[in-house]
Amino acid sequence: MKSLSSKIMTAEEAASLIKNGEYIGISGFTLSGYPKAVPEALALRVLELRKKGEDFKVSIFSGASAGDDCDGVLARAGGIDMRMPYQSNSSLREGINKGVIRYMDQHLGSMGPMVRSGALPRPTLALIECIAVTPEGRVYLSSSGGNSVTYLECADRVILEINTIYGEEFIGLHDTFIPSLPPFTRPIPISKVDDRVGSVFIQIPPEKIAAIVYTERHDKVNPFSPPDEISKTIASHILDFIHVEHQKGRLPRGLPYQSGVGNVANAVLTEMALDSRLGKVNIYTEVIQEAVLPLLESGKLGFASGTALTLSEAAQRQVNQNISHWKNHFVLRQQEISNSPELIRRLGVISMNTALEIDLFGNVNSSHVCGSSIMNGIGGAADYARNCYLGFFMTPSLAKNGCVSTIVPLVSHCDHTDHDTMIFVTEQGVADLRGLDPISRAKLIISNCAHPDFRAELTDFLNFSIKQTRKGHLPVCLDRAFEMHLRFLQTGKMLK
Amino acid sequence: MKSLSSKIMTAEEAASLIKNGEYIGISGFTLSGYPKAVPEALALRVLELRKKGEDFKVSIFSGASAGDDCDGVLARAGGIDMRMPYQSNSSLREGINKGVIRYMDQHLGSMGPMVRSGALPRPTLALIECIAVTPEGRVYLSSSGGNSVTYLECADRVILEINTIYGEEFIGLHDTFIPSLPPFTRPIPISKVDDRVGSVFIQIPPEKIAAIVYTERHDKVNPFSPPDEISKTIASHILDFIHVEHQKGRLPRGLPYQSGVGNVANAVLTEMALDSRLGKVNIYTEVIQEAVLPLLESGKLGFASGTALTLSEAAQRQVNQNISHWKNHFVLRQQEISNSPELIRRLGVISMNTALEIDLFGNVNSSHVCGSSIMNGIGGAADYARNCYLGFFMTPSLAKNGCVSTIVPLVSHCDHTDHDTMIFVTEQGVADLRGLDPISRAKLIISNCAHPDFRAELTDFLNFSIKQTRKGHLPVCLDRAFEMHLRFLQTGKMLK
Repeated sequence: MKSLSSKIMTAEEAASLIKNGEYIGISGFTLSGYPKAVPEALALRVLELRKKGEDFKVSIFSGASAGDDCDGVLARAGGIDMRMPYQSNSSLREGINKGVIRYMDQHLGSMGPMVRSGALPRPTLALIECIAVTPEGRVYLSSSGGNSVTYLECADRVILEINTIYGEEFIGLHDTFIPSLPPFTRPIPISKVDDRVGSVFIQIPPEKIAAIVYTERHDKVNPFSPPDEISKTIASHILDFIHVEHQKGRLPRGLPYQSGVGNVANAVLTEMALDSRLGKVNIYTEVIQEAVLPLLESGKLGFASGTALTLSEAAQRQVNQNISHWKNHFVLRQQEISNSPELIRRLGVISMNTALEIDLFGNVNSSHVCGSSIMNGIGGAADYARNCYLGFFMTPSLAKNGCVSTIVPLVSHCDHTDHDTMIFVTEQGVADLRGLDPISRAKLIISNCAHPDFRAELTDFLNFSIKQTRKGHLPVCLDRAFEMHLRFLQTGKMLK
Repeated sequence: MKSLSSKIMTAEEAASLIKNGEYIGISGFTLSGYPKAVPEALALRVLELRKKGEDFKVSIFSGASAGDDCDGVLARAGGIDMRMPYQSNSSLREGINKGVIRYMDQHLGSMGPMVRSGALPRPTLALIECIAVTPEGRVYLSSSGGNSVTYLECADRVILEINTIYGEEFIGLHDTFIPSLPPFTRPIPISKVDDRVGSVFIQIPPEKIAAIVYTERHDKVNPFSPPDEISKTIASHILDFIHVEHQKGRLPRGLPYQSGVGNVANAVLTEMALDSRLGKVNIYTEVIQEAVLPLLESGKLGFASGTALTLSEAAQRQVNQNISHWKNHFVLRQQEISNSPELIRRLGVISMNTALEIDLFGNVNSSHVCGSSIMNGIGGAADYARNCYLGFFMTPSLAKNGCVSTIVPLVSHCDHTDHDTMIFVTEQGVADLRGLDPISRAKLIISNCAHPDFRAELTDFLNFSIKQTRKGHLPVCLDRAFEMHLRFLQTGKMLK
């Protein structure tokens, strides 16, 4: 790496190359593979400049959420102007909900093409964590694919964080293919979860590399906690349902699974490892999470395709030790491939995502509490929900220690419309909405998914709406649609 | 057609073969190519049975909307139990909104695969309008593709209406390709609007043909009316915007257009024929409508791919006379191909659809008036809006003679979320929402798209919501979100 050795510098020196107002495209997806040292150094620089009365902010486009040592420190320093397309950091969330940080969540599969087409501002700087770079400009990504290819391609200048926790054995995990934009787009030549169609590295002009910073740091991911009883119940409902669909011949065996992140999703994967009714499990998802490891260890994992390998520090160590063996079971793609409508539909993915709230008619809110405060963002759920072969949205029927019903008359914010949802699952049961008209949907959701404490009020809303709207196709009494939400905002409880 | 001649019968005889409770898959898409004689005869049979105290209902799956001589007569006779995935008939709408007919609107591109996979009930009878059928069972479709291949494949019994208004020259217009279901799906091998990848006919086992009925009837489509001033203004805003995007280099030239149906969509196509800034126009859409003819006549049409050729009777005669020449410019596909996410994204479609109402944050309602009464359905708009290269939603800023603002604080029903919308256009102007956070979106929509009569109230809602939710990421004051709708329901006017 002779010709690049002059670019090696400290994180502070690299951070000093960043310009006020710049759009930065960073690596990272769901707390994995994001840059760590330069964002921290940049946050310190922002704070120092602020002391001198200078304002300094950057806009950050990522794959998805980054760790606290990136999103958190920069948000707390007041260094972020605009952020897209997903986040999950408490400090960043606070800044967004106070109106201090501009934010737009976006389908994760659309972000890369929107940047390349010019629909969104072009990042002028790419800040990318990697395992290695060669003098010819071959960049080997670390634990996530994200939109790194797009940002490396678009940016004039590149800062690389070479993270030495990854050995050379880690090389080969990625498949960095992205399609050309229209009018030059061709079919994406992937027809199986383990098809490899691109390169294991990204080729960039070496002269674009402005700085190389060495780090030795794990992704900041909370330790994996075993599923609670409610999550286990939801998981068993889902696996039972899949089993019956197999038996009915409505669901071909061997279709790959997508799983969102969080406790319930973890529970499903954990239960899968124990379910003797399932054969080999293939995964076509965004985030290959810790709960996939038991599948791998039990010999049940066929192949897992994702855009991120998101693991606790202990699991990162475990995987890095076994990577030369385990990488035969994994591929990390760019997120526009992991979340491609074309591929999700072609592969026939079985999709499982978490809902924040669900309404009587089949709409799902996955992002905004009481319609206004962002939690994280829509993420990639809609890429899968719209295009999957069979789709589940799952949530415990109660939240906030029982004060909130996750089944509501009308969602306070709509991320997935009734046309994009098929099966709802809570610990109460399963509602299969396929082919049902709105009133039948509502009755089924109340009886099968809502918590008993809330069934009477939900039924009352439905009956009142049917009367008030003189039936109507989809009876929603608008002046009472948010009564439960408003009661919660006023009293802290949805229950009367 | 010797071996089939025994199957030729009257519409009444064919209708008598239909069973009570049966699911029927019919041809037809947006008033074109639907069966006419058998539905009318069935409606009469239903009425006669009712007189005898017998109930008789069928469920109807189609491509999209059928004419009054199909959807209308059957709805008025009380002969429809369940209807999917789209309709636009006043009698049918009335039955749905009274709760007498079960209805679920569905993305038009998803309906076929959902039937084949078993997610929806399998039609046992296919009732298909065609031009011809051969003794070997080759069926040549008429003026629409729809889901006819799926229904012919799934059904045990087939009734064909051979419509003799189409000459043999009409043969060759269709490309009947549909992909296999997972796990056997391969890339759809279409990369240009004029690629043909299937057959011009559908092969079915001739023994499935239960009846053949001859007809000589045009599709019932209202005559084309020239665009009004408001539609023309919206059209010129869109074409100006496209011109600027071309100039900025953000929009490659030659990308194909999709256009919804209705006055505004017609105006856009009409104005395109007159716009000297545009070169050849390619179309990749659902409905090739009458306004495409001026493009063809002026030599401006490159190629048009659709699933339906929807024309007034006069235009049907004109096209039928010229079909041997004009069919070089047209192809009719199955709707899961015209509306395929894979292909819409690959081809880089510029999408233009009509909204019923638009809210401050970028959500669109295209189906339900005041959240409850169905107008038509979501149709194929979402297939395009989610996957297009550049997407417009357009509407006059006022409806119901100025009593209703189509820009509202919060949509009363959400068909397209803020993640799926890019550019809003009314006669007032254009709001380009790409990359904007919610509050910036709201301000731009109010200033550029809302009618001046409603700007003060919309601004007041926004400011109040920002205050009440202590900013919030997407400030929606839930107890005032539907004030304008409720005022309309009470007084017939949204204006105070």
